[in-house]
Amino acid sequence: MTKPTLGIGMAGYAFMGRAHSQAWRTVGNFFDIPMQVDMAAICGRDAGKVAAAASKLGWRTAETDWRALIERDDIHLVDVCTPGNSHCEIAIAALDAGKHVLCEKPLANTADEAAAMVAAAERAARKGIRAMVGFNYRRLPATTLANRMVTEGKLGKIRHVRAVYLQDWIVDPEFPLVWRLRQEAAGSGALGDLGAHIVDLAQFITGQQVSAVSALTETFVRERPLPSHTDNGARGQVTVDDAALFIARLDAGAVATFEATRFATGRKNGLRIEINGEHGSLAFDLERLNELEYFDATGPTVSQGFTRILVTEPEHPYTAAWWPPGHGLGYEHSFTHEVRDLIHGIAEGSDPRPTFADGFQVQRVLDAVARSAAESSGWLAVDQSDLVAGPPTR
Amino acid sequence: MTKPTLGIGMAGYAFMGRAHSQAWRTVGNFFDIPMQVDMAAICGRDAGKVAAAASKLGWRTAETDWRALIERDDIHLVDVCTPGNSHCEIAIAALDAGKHVLCEKPLANTADEAAAMVAAAERAARKGIRAMVGFNYRRLPATTLANRMVTEGKLGKIRHVRAVYLQDWIVDPEFPLVWRLRQEAAGSGALGDLGAHIVDLAQFITGQQVSAVSALTETFVRERPLPSHTDNGARGQVTVDDAALFIARLDAGAVATFEATRFATGRKNGLRIEINGEHGSLAFDLERLNELEYFDATGPTVSQGFTRILVTEPEHPYTAAWWPPGHGLGYEHSFTHEVRDLIHGIAEGSDPRPTFADGFQVQRVLDAVARSAAESSGWLAVDQSDLVAGPPTR
Amino acid sequence: MTKPTLGIGMAGYAFMGRAHSQAWRTVGNFFDIPMQVDMAAICGRDAGKVAAAASKLGWRTAETDWRALIERDDIHLVDVCTPGNSHCEIAIAALDAGKHVLCEKPLANTADEAAAMVAAAERAARKGIRAMVGFNYRRLPATTLANRMVTEGKLGKIRHVRAVYLQDWIVDPEFPLVWRLRQEAAGSGALGDLGAHIVDLAQFITGQQVSAVSALTETFVRERPLPSHTDNGARGQVTVDDAALFIARLDAGAVATFEATRFATGRKNGLRIEINGEHGSLAFDLERLNELEYFDATGPTVSQGFTRILVTEPEHPYTAAWWPPGHGLGYEHSFTHEVRDLIHGIAEGSDPRPTFADGFQVQRVLDAVARSAAESSGWLAVDQSDLVAGPPTR
Amino acid sequence: MTKPTLGIGMAGYAFMGRAHSQAWRTVGNFFDIPMQVDMAAICGRDAGKVAAAASKLGWRTAETDWRALIERDDIHLVDVCTPGNSHCEIAIAALDAGKHVLCEKPLANTADEAAAMVAAAERAARKGIRAMVGFNYRRLPATTLANRMVTEGKLGKIRHVRAVYLQDWIVDPEFPLVWRLRQEAAGSGALGDLGAHIVDLAQFITGQQVSAVSALTETFVRERPLPSHTDNGARGQVTVDDAALFIARLDAGAVATFEATRFATGRKNGLRIEINGEHGSLAFDLERLNELEYFDATGPTVSQGFTRILVTEPEHPYTAAWWPPGHGLGYEHSFTHEVRDLIHGIAEGSDPRPTFADGFQVQRVLDAVARSAAESSGWLAVDQSDLVAGPPTR
Repeated sequence: MTKPTLGIGMAGYAFMGRAHSQAWRTVGNFFDIPMQVDMAAICGRDAGKVAAAASKLGWRTAETDWRALIERDDIHLVDVCTPGNSHCEIAIAALDAGKHVLCEKPLANTADEAAAMVAAAERAARKGIRAMVGFNYRRLPATTLANRMVTEGKLGKIRHVRAVYLQDWIVDPEFPLVWRLRQEAAGSGALGDLGAHIVDLAQFITGQQVSAVSALTETFVRERPLPSHTDNGARGQVTVDDAALFIARLDAGAVATFEATRFATGRKNGLRIEINGEHGSLAFDLERLNELEYFDATGPTVSQGFTRILVTEPEHPYTAAWWPPGHGLGYEHSFTHEVRDLIHGIAEGSDPRPTFADGFQVQRVLDAVARSAAESSGWLAVDQSDLVAGPPTR
Repeated sequence: MTKPTLGIGMAGYAFMGRAHSQAWRTVGNFFDIPMQVDMAAICGRDAGKVAAAASKLGWRTAETDWRALIERDDIHLVDVCTPGNSHCEIAIAALDAGKHVLCEKPLANTADEAAAMVAAAERAARKGIRAMVGFNYRRLPATTLANRMVTEGKLGKIRHVRAVYLQDWIVDPEFPLVWRLRQEAAGSGALGDLGAHIVDLAQFITGQQVSAVSALTETFVRERPLPSHTDNGARGQVTVDDAALFIARLDAGAVATFEATRFATGRKNGLRIEINGEHGSLAFDLERLNELEYFDATGPTVSQGFTRILVTEPEHPYTAAWWPPGHGLGYEHSFTHEVRDLIHGIAEGSDPRPTFADGFQVQRVLDAVARSAAESSGWLAVDQSDLVAGPPTR
Repeated sequence: MTKPTLGIGMAGYAFMGRAHSQAWRTVGNFFDIPMQVDMAAICGRDAGKVAAAASKLGWRTAETDWRALIERDDIHLVDVCTPGNSHCEIAIAALDAGKHVLCEKPLANTADEAAAMVAAAERAARKGIRAMVGFNYRRLPATTLANRMVTEGKLGKIRHVRAVYLQDWIVDPEFPLVWRLRQEAAGSGALGDLGAHIVDLAQFITGQQVSAVSALTETFVRERPLPSHTDNGARGQVTVDDAALFIARLDAGAVATFEATRFATGRKNGLRIEINGEHGSLAFDLERLNELEYFDATGPTVSQGFTRILVTEPEHPYTAAWWPPGHGLGYEHSFTHEVRDLIHGIAEGSDPRPTFADGFQVQRVLDAVARSAAESSGWLAVDQSDLVAGPPTR
Repeated sequence: MTKPTLGIGMAGYAFMGRAHSQAWRTVGNFFDIPMQVDMAAICGRDAGKVAAAASKLGWRTAETDWRALIERDDIHLVDVCTPGNSHCEIAIAALDAGKHVLCEKPLANTADEAAAMVAAAERAARKGIRAMVGFNYRRLPATTLANRMVTEGKLGKIRHVRAVYLQDWIVDPEFPLVWRLRQEAAGSGALGDLGAHIVDLAQFITGQQVSAVSALTETFVRERPLPSHTDNGARGQVTVDDAALFIARLDAGAVATFEATRFATGRKNGLRIEINGEHGSLAFDLERLNELEYFDATGPTVSQGFTRILVTEPEHPYTAAWWPPGHGLGYEHSFTHEVRDLIHGIAEGSDPRPTFADGFQVQRVLDAVARSAAESSGWLAVDQSDLVAGPPTR
């Protein structure tokens, strides 16, 4: 009856830090989890700010050096919510120190970094340490249901995937040059930020991996105001893509289109994915995240059509823990489900998906996209050597 | 900088208790509130169950007698989440003991009870004690925005309200005779449970009060299995309405239709409201709670149409505290906003809406509906004597 | 192989005249019909205008007196598209002269007129003459499919009907006092114009008749500018309802809400009907007339939801005659289907639905609505004496 | 007042022949056109079938040789509705014989054929003879409105186009090998049939031309049953694409994705196009052809969103000729508008768009797509030499 304690140390307290904090705070109030969560420490470089964040977000203590976080005995899991350029160093250090790791997506800014992280995760796994990458959109009830339906064969052989992730927050050319628009911090632009999500989600739902791509990237606005108030109107170069478009083949025969952009005026969080199989189709839109559309081609034609499933029934994934049918969930619940599954994985000694190898596979797709775009959109196979992720099911 | 503590004692830990607990736990993590919430005690009659609930839902202690809750010095606010037949007694006792009260809707099972509660709230108000009734759907970003737009005159003179609240959880005649289907516990059926919400919401958004009604109620399935396992197939009488339909006039000239039912197969939480004014219209659907549809009749005809506003921008009510645009909220957030506003009311000495008088006004409408239905649907004025709620704005 | 000729004479050439003309011109190009349509004559009082209309709309000749139309030997069917106050006289004269009659809805302006028309239709029927009332919305593929699904038992016992017909063309108080706003020409306002359609459609789809009502009518703008240019700003009284709201019972146990209005800002042709039964539900919206939404409650919960049937498959009513799946039809096609069915009825000696008795039943419902509204919304049974329409199936 | 007669001769009477016939029959009944249409002759190889078609579709006479059609003095315009492999021969012969030509899309099966047709159209134009290619989807009220709004600058600089044309009629591997699946008759598969439409529509609405592409084509089912009943189960090779996917650049800086497929299970006629500009966005779905979605980014954020414009107002293109607001049009109306505009062009001596040069430009894009797909998706510029279409506005 006395559950073991899982001490959490989190690095970073911006957008993702706030979302993960809500997940750690809430998971035990709704789910029966086999461990007791202790929100031990949050870490950031600015002592004053991190103390305020600890108080606001519900962390017991604050640290200013992520190495100190890793050394603490009361911390068993490090949650990496920092920008992508620090993922590799923090995650490997934590794993090597025997801490479980939850690492925000994308796993790393380059495939080389990702490869090193996978190696660290494999070393750690041999000592019973778990590593997971935070593709939270896998863990919405609707996307998990989609994966389940494909796995059950409801769609038959998959023919088409079309996935877009559309945002519009930098349409204005005067929007400042924040860290997400600089290559050295973010690795890439819409590609890594948004494209990573749709590649992972497409692979997760279909159980197929992207095997080859042809791509185009574009930076519409190449110079922007520097964000600091002291810059007096100085401008700097945008060094990442504003948009990435690619066509692809999946390894079991489907063809796909992908588009990630921050210039789709009016689309705020427009992750949409549609999958067509020989027996049916599925469609999902993140702006209506409690819904999944399903076309069943096996019944009588006269009543066929896309069915809007309100994914809030007790029979649906995760939903029995929350509210009655029709009482929808929000964006943040995906993180609560993510940590729920991670805690189960740790307690039960099973590998929670997506693993670092899954994250590495996504990174390799993004790398192929970037290279194809740089080489006149020529068709490029995704590197599948050495480290191969398992079948991307849950 | 040391915020005063607000000790909360909650009675009831079923559906509403779980929802309110999440609100009290979460409000300080997202909003800057002027008091420190202390989830002091939860109360229920079964000692084992209430202890488990306290642990699961994050309450510091448990009580088995609501009178003990009221007596505790570390409790400053009593949150009444019990069935409707106990609201009156608990709320009045708490107010008279100098505790603020948040009372779930409907305020009471009868207008007489509600009148007594309003009197108690007025007595308490003279001592600086606050009372609020929990019509949580007022506090969704979309409905609050709707109220704001009407208040700003965007719709002009209101002509029509049409509101439905459609559920389907008792369509099956073998669904058991739970407390919500017995008059002595629930007061009424779909009318008080669902109808109360749409009457309150219609009045809140329009700023008008329902002044007269003509109504029909129906109980489609009049006998159901008793819920207890020991009943061996015995059946009992359904003593509340399955559905309530009414037409109405609002006091500033609009006409309205209302329908509340638990027999709308396929509609899980289908609260829909549309308001037509001389300059525009608004439409809301709780199954898509992050959206508000707005028709602006004042611009050029060529580009007129219903605009689907994704109510997730920083400019929208409550949303700046949460996530970036397009990252939707869920059902439970309405409660977090409710307690946020209540805490501000307490700290600032202002009356949070909806007051008990607002709840009483809704109860009087429901009473008129029940009487009209019992008297051949004849037109009945809603009693407006004595205690009159203020204008139902926020 | 030589098909008999069916000579048509049409009275009226305004909106309905244009729509019916398109139907008569087109029906033989798409459907295999057992008679040859001859668009013999169109009739209107102004010789110049009716000649122009004949030329524009494809009629062989023009007449200025409807009595002359009836007397012509080459005319076998009179199509009455005039305002409602002349329906009774023209239709009875035509029937008594041995002409088939297609009469626009509503059948008449009063129940007394309608009763006389039914009597004439019965007299004529004994001589093999057919009479049909033009509730064209029965003849959209989606509504006919809805009727078929109910008839097949897909919904089980019907619990709820909710039907609205929302328009907004007179929201502006300066819109002139056209004939549709004067009682002596139009009989009633939104009630007869729009309410008639939803009462007929509800009865058609469900196979049940409205048996009792409680109603409210409203005229928001009571005085409007006279339409003639010579009126110099003079104003006249609006003598019909702007909106009619009523609740009702159907004779097999369903309850219903109806609303007809010309003041629903932004709703252009918003006829919406939803039907909830114990095994499923149907929903239709005339602004998306090629779609029917269907909820099937009999399958597994996990994939239930409202299915958007695109009613354009060859298996659907009427659609095989037109285009491939997904190629939608428009408003006017309902009239083509109407005259197709009428021609078959004439050729095969069967009574096309809706009959005059069906139209009379609708008129009796409207009369009960008007009387209930005039009598404090009291519950009123619909007169069912004497002439009873058959079951309102197709 | 005596309008000149325009004698029409039509080659082909299958799907497109039926659609064009309805257009020629109907245009004068709704629009004020400057010429009198004479449906002089329809032409097909089978004498019996073409005579039946003439009778059914409203043509005065029938011919069995298209050369005879061209020679007739009472024919001034030849409407080419045959499969793509005969377009070139018939259209050039007709133009050279001094007949106006309306040619179904795609203009030809190859770019070489299309080039010859453009040359013939230019020769003919010097003699006052007009040639038009039948991209009918330009002529829906919603798409014409979209073009108008872009032209007016409502979207500002265009950033993105995403266009799909999704059908599902050959998902079943046992669907027979009809002419549309054979290269020698159809030229290509989904690419020419569906891809041509979305390329033309994207260019029409944006006023930009596709300048370069990277593409992938796929044939999922490579062998199908022969369609003839006498084939006794024999199978033949599918020699066209089932699906074509491509990314593209437009000549004024936008990037685009295109997808044309016949394997999108559940999508019946799913032509969807979305355009994002710096000041707004537009979205259109052919399955809801009376609607256009518009996002206006220039107004206050608080009420921004996608507005569903019901394109049925008198202020909208073409719609004043038809029905009141909210009374939607169908698929076939696009053809009526097409011939309306062509007749005006002929009467007024102006070139109706899209010209053969416009059709040639589309063909060149399709050719580049096919070549890129054959060459490992490498980036290919669209040939812009010699014959350049004017700006693709209406």
